[in-house]
Amino acid sequence: MVSRVAVDKSTRTAQNGTATRHGGTLPSTDQRARTVVDRVRPVVDQGHRPAKAAVGQRLNVEADAFVDGHDLVACELRFRHAAGTKWTVIPMHELSDDRWGAQWLVESTGWYRFAVRAAVDPFATWRRDLQARLGALQDVTVELAVGAALLNDSASRAKRQPGHELRQVANLLVEGARGLETPIADLNPAWQGTSLGQLLFSTEFGNLVASLIDPATMTSSPTYQVFADIPLARCSAWYELFPRSAATNPKRHGTFSDMRRRLGEIERMGFDILYLPPIHPIGRTGRKGPDGTPHGAESDPGSPWAIGAAEGGHVAIHPELGSVHDFDQLVTEAAEHHMAIAIDLAFQASPDHPWVKEHPSWFKHRPDGTIRYAENPPKKYEDIYPLDFESEDWQSLWEELLDVVFFWIDHGVRVFRVDNPHTKPFAFWEWLIGSVRQRFPEVIFLAEAFTRPQVMKELAKRGFTQSYTYFTWRTSKWDLETYMRELTESDMADYFRPNFWPNTPDILSEELQHGGRAAFVSRLILAATLSPNYGIYGPAFELQEHVPRSAGSEEYRRSEKYELRSWDLAKPDSLADLVTIVNQIRRAHPALQHMEGLHFHRAENDRVIAYSRRWVPPTRGASGDDDRIVVIVNLDHAHEQSAFVDLDLGALGLDPTGPYVMHDLLTGAKYQWQGWRNFVILNPEQSAHVFAVSQFQDGQVSG
Amino acid sequence: MVSRVAVDKSTRTAQNGTATRHGGTLPSTDQRARTVVDRVRPVVDQGHRPAKAAVGQRLNVEADAFVDGHDLVACELRFRHAAGTKWTVIPMHELSDDRWGAQWLVESTGWYRFAVRAAVDPFATWRRDLQARLGALQDVTVELAVGAALLNDSASRAKRQPGHELRQVANLLVEGARGLETPIADLNPAWQGTSLGQLLFSTEFGNLVASLIDPATMTSSPTYQVFADIPLARCSAWYELFPRSAATNPKRHGTFSDMRRRLGEIERMGFDILYLPPIHPIGRTGRKGPDGTPHGAESDPGSPWAIGAAEGGHVAIHPELGSVHDFDQLVTEAAEHHMAIAIDLAFQASPDHPWVKEHPSWFKHRPDGTIRYAENPPKKYEDIYPLDFESEDWQSLWEELLDVVFFWIDHGVRVFRVDNPHTKPFAFWEWLIGSVRQRFPEVIFLAEAFTRPQVMKELAKRGFTQSYTYFTWRTSKWDLETYMRELTESDMADYFRPNFWPNTPDILSEELQHGGRAAFVSRLILAATLSPNYGIYGPAFELQEHVPRSAGSEEYRRSEKYELRSWDLAKPDSLADLVTIVNQIRRAHPALQHMEGLHFHRAENDRVIAYSRRWVPPTRGASGDDDRIVVIVNLDHAHEQSAFVDLDLGALGLDPTGPYVMHDLLTGAKYQWQGWRNFVILNPEQSAHVFAVSQFQDGQVSG
Repeated sequence: MVSRVAVDKSTRTAQNGTATRHGGTLPSTDQRARTVVDRVRPVVDQGHRPAKAAVGQRLNVEADAFVDGHDLVACELRFRHAAGTKWTVIPMHELSDDRWGAQWLVESTGWYRFAVRAAVDPFATWRRDLQARLGALQDVTVELAVGAALLNDSASRAKRQPGHELRQVANLLVEGARGLETPIADLNPAWQGTSLGQLLFSTEFGNLVASLIDPATMTSSPTYQVFADIPLARCSAWYELFPRSAATNPKRHGTFSDMRRRLGEIERMGFDILYLPPIHPIGRTGRKGPDGTPHGAESDPGSPWAIGAAEGGHVAIHPELGSVHDFDQLVTEAAEHHMAIAIDLAFQASPDHPWVKEHPSWFKHRPDGTIRYAENPPKKYEDIYPLDFESEDWQSLWEELLDVVFFWIDHGVRVFRVDNPHTKPFAFWEWLIGSVRQRFPEVIFLAEAFTRPQVMKELAKRGFTQSYTYFTWRTSKWDLETYMRELTESDMADYFRPNFWPNTPDILSEELQHGGRAAFVSRLILAATLSPNYGIYGPAFELQEHVPRSAGSEEYRRSEKYELRSWDLAKPDSLADLVTIVNQIRRAHPALQHMEGLHFHRAENDRVIAYSRRWVPPTRGASGDDDRIVVIVNLDHAHEQSAFVDLDLGALGLDPTGPYVMHDLLTGAKYQWQGWRNFVILNPEQSAHVFAVSQFQDGQVSG
Repeated sequence: MVSRVAVDKSTRTAQNGTATRHGGTLPSTDQRARTVVDRVRPVVDQGHRPAKAAVGQRLNVEADAFVDGHDLVACELRFRHAAGTKWTVIPMHELSDDRWGAQWLVESTGWYRFAVRAAVDPFATWRRDLQARLGALQDVTVELAVGAALLNDSASRAKRQPGHELRQVANLLVEGARGLETPIADLNPAWQGTSLGQLLFSTEFGNLVASLIDPATMTSSPTYQVFADIPLARCSAWYELFPRSAATNPKRHGTFSDMRRRLGEIERMGFDILYLPPIHPIGRTGRKGPDGTPHGAESDPGSPWAIGAAEGGHVAIHPELGSVHDFDQLVTEAAEHHMAIAIDLAFQASPDHPWVKEHPSWFKHRPDGTIRYAENPPKKYEDIYPLDFESEDWQSLWEELLDVVFFWIDHGVRVFRVDNPHTKPFAFWEWLIGSVRQRFPEVIFLAEAFTRPQVMKELAKRGFTQSYTYFTWRTSKWDLETYMRELTESDMADYFRPNFWPNTPDILSEELQHGGRAAFVSRLILAATLSPNYGIYGPAFELQEHVPRSAGSEEYRRSEKYELRSWDLAKPDSLADLVTIVNQIRRAHPALQHMEGLHFHRAENDRVIAYSRRWVPPTRGASGDDDRIVVIVNLDHAHEQSAFVDLDLGALGLDPTGPYVMHDLLTGAKYQWQGWRNFVILNPEQSAHVFAVSQFQDGQVSG
């Protein structure tokens, strides 16, 4: 078995070859490995980093495999879980022009290894040529002897029983008198009614001989890695909530006990992950006032991201929220409600953080001896000291931060939303996430990096499970389609798992500020159906909080980042019921739980977007088992829009001639459609359809 | 200096790191190298194989370079010729979103090495922030001290003179009293009239400090390779001619002496390379008759590709062509006519080749003891024995074949057209071409592989200088544009140098069979202006030979492959004059001599194709120095076609408001155009325009 890289090396360097009379060297590698294996995917950073997968996902592996000349190639995928020892080997099939594919269903969390191997298949080649010769009525006596030699050679690598049979078939081939029509039941009773020729040209016999190809003739790709996350990493609905605003009494600081009373309602809305902004003691020095004004009053609660005070730092709980024990209880009760608690990893300190005194070397100092606070010149954030990841003492800092993560893992946390990871070195995250994963492969890290594309991609490559995206600012049809194509069709699909948020405490988008209820509805449906991972910052979202701090700002007015808020959850125009329905649809439809299977359909109106998701079950029966969702959204929040929608029925796996049923899961209405062209009207009151699609059969709706 | 790969390794393996209390390891690499360098191009097979360039070409290098956070990055390209020892270092500029670019003019044949290095630029970052602080009227006293520390740090890595100056500037910064307006001529008389602030923010000072960035903070890409060919590899016009048909007496076998008499005329037509099909003794066993019929007569000349007879093999000359001495004379005289002689490397043997007796092990044997002749079942080629590159005796075969190449190099040949390279192992070609290049970097190998895309690409990656293409079969506008985009915009541009042939002795395309003179004209102009390398098989081309052996066949009737032909070069409808003009245009216009600079323009008619090539001189003056060619071709050989052509004036570098001159180089006519939309009519009698374009200025045509 010769890897491509090994071949390259030996032909480029002089060390291993045979010296020639020309002063050069001949390749030392086995010339029988003539096949090239190349452009394997999924591969991230040439294999230095793992591709991402998740349990329950079918992983598509593809590779180029080809050889000089006209010989046929056999190509196989080999994979194994790192904890296992045995490789699973499955044949790959040619997709087109020397491109091969295979897929496997990911069944365990953790590291997988895989490689693609290919070789000339001499028997398949011989069989193809024999057929051409027979078709031209050529004398094939000598060719049958060639075939017999190939079978005897294969037999030499076979176990006793198949080896014996191959030799018997070889013998029949050279007994020319009997011919290819000879019945061969005497060789093996299973071959009753089969002739020698039928056996030779059967798929099964071809596969048997192919499985005995001489390993010395095989070319293997390098071995690549895939990291398989838990299913929650692949599909999750997040709800972000400030615990301090969770009290029913609007004047009181919310507590973890208040949070526990909210769990039932959040579970009912259908969320999987309840994410809490930082829960640690908040610094007093430089504390911000309402709307982020400098010099807050003693009574202002301050920003939870200004972490650390006399009461403690990253492993302490803000006293007004409760104790560590209260937190443990919240985690436990959330689990009983089938939800995971996510906490915020904001690796920075307030000037009052214990680290400032205990480890001054972990911070950057200015020539006047002061510690450098956070700045984005000319903006100043005097309540926050960034950590210096490059200080002389970086190793002790990095280990402390890993300790923080393990502390919360010990308290049952398995999901971390990471604040501004793009302002810390990539190598730090790769090390931290890798270290956690060695012991806890089920842990999920969500990267809150709203920055340049390369930086966001690099963080995902270095290990982040999920990533915030540009979804918030992709509002036109062209923007949405282009972005989705990048996420699903470029190599990002191999390592970047998007998480779509219509809003966050930092981002009240212009669209939500001005689009009214219709904007909230359409952004919710887009987020929840374009990406298996999505989240909302509530109750600001359901209650359609939409006033910015100032014109042109994306900050909320009276932001919860700087003050306690009290929310009237019973407001009649709350979107909580719609959120509930949308999450129910997501849970009922595997098509919405996988990134694969997205397809955009043509709508003859730039303000109407139409797309579908299709899920083919792993053990596929009739195509009636496929799960198909078609979503059509009005992107105009102020006006009715109509469009002819041209459904690509082939992409949906629907019979293009028969009728099919469009079941609107938001309203319950059912429509019978036929053909690819249909007319849709949407208005700001009903700004989206989410259809389950099934073939109409004999008066019955299937699927 | 830390390469990305090295960082990866250390963070993935436990060998080199520091053990931590968590049982993991901390990265051992220097944390100060935070920058990522990635996606460098041109890079072939992840750097295992060289990218292609040619002397006179500007090589564009691009890379991603970025870092976490908000620091500014400096990025540089380092390159050197393998024969040199000193690296040339040039700064790269940011193209967009963390993508950087630089170019260098390739000046010598042979191997180049290059790498991209990047690092945080602390001074540039500090300067950017200082500007923001000054703009907000903040007190910058402490920040100036930070800047002074940065300059003193840079000074510690500087030579004496700049180091001294940097320290003086640093001193001025901490002498806060003097301020940024301080005149600084007392530091350096060259700074007369400059203030401290002006110096700090000047490009030159920024570049000086950037050149002193701490090497320990730099990240380098791996070192990649480029092979630079001679200019002829980049731009060449080939003429293929059967020497045996070169006699003026139609009954006589042509000779090298006859060929020598043709040299003047071929030079006048403007060709650079005169390519001869195999010139070796031709086998008698299985010799083909006219039109490739089996069992040729004793008097038939046989196919020149059935190489080898009693008179010798691959290092012998067919006796009727002349002697090796005659060949040497032909090569010498061709050089005097500014043409290179290309010979054919067809590595196969007739049954009469001396190798068959001397080295029977170099051939495949069948079980009946016979040698396997060439087949494409059910087709048989009894006059040809393929060589067995995988025999036990492969090493002696490979060396013999390399000897063949060196034999002809010794006889002055520097250009080889390689017959069917795709039926020999890739590793063989990599070794053979690599071995030749070590001693003769100027040698050109043209791969005649008409096969699957991956195989053609792989041969180019393994070393072939130029490659035959699918051009012959790309006839519609969509096909031509799509194929050109693949060749020029995909990674093929880095290693695959196309050579466009409208016809070959093996391929009389359907278009030429049925399209009449207009088809020949348009295919000539497309080939010669879409690709800097092109060729024709003549005189069949100029004389518009167009009758196939049989309907549906691409073989010529009365093919020169099997018989002597006599050509009436004086025929009045010969295209020789047009060929001459086209080659003159190519020689006069650098835009046609480089693959870069191709741009398609919209023509509102599917039968009319419009494209331009633009060449910007290496030392660019006004854009009036640019060379610009616009080609418009009627793809309909039977009817007149007209179209509005929308010229992308931006791509051409033309003033979109001013008039410009379109000088038709085929007819000499000049037109004044204005604006992007113009109307064109082409008919089968005049099926193409080849315009030189220049801005119209003050009543004068520039450029």
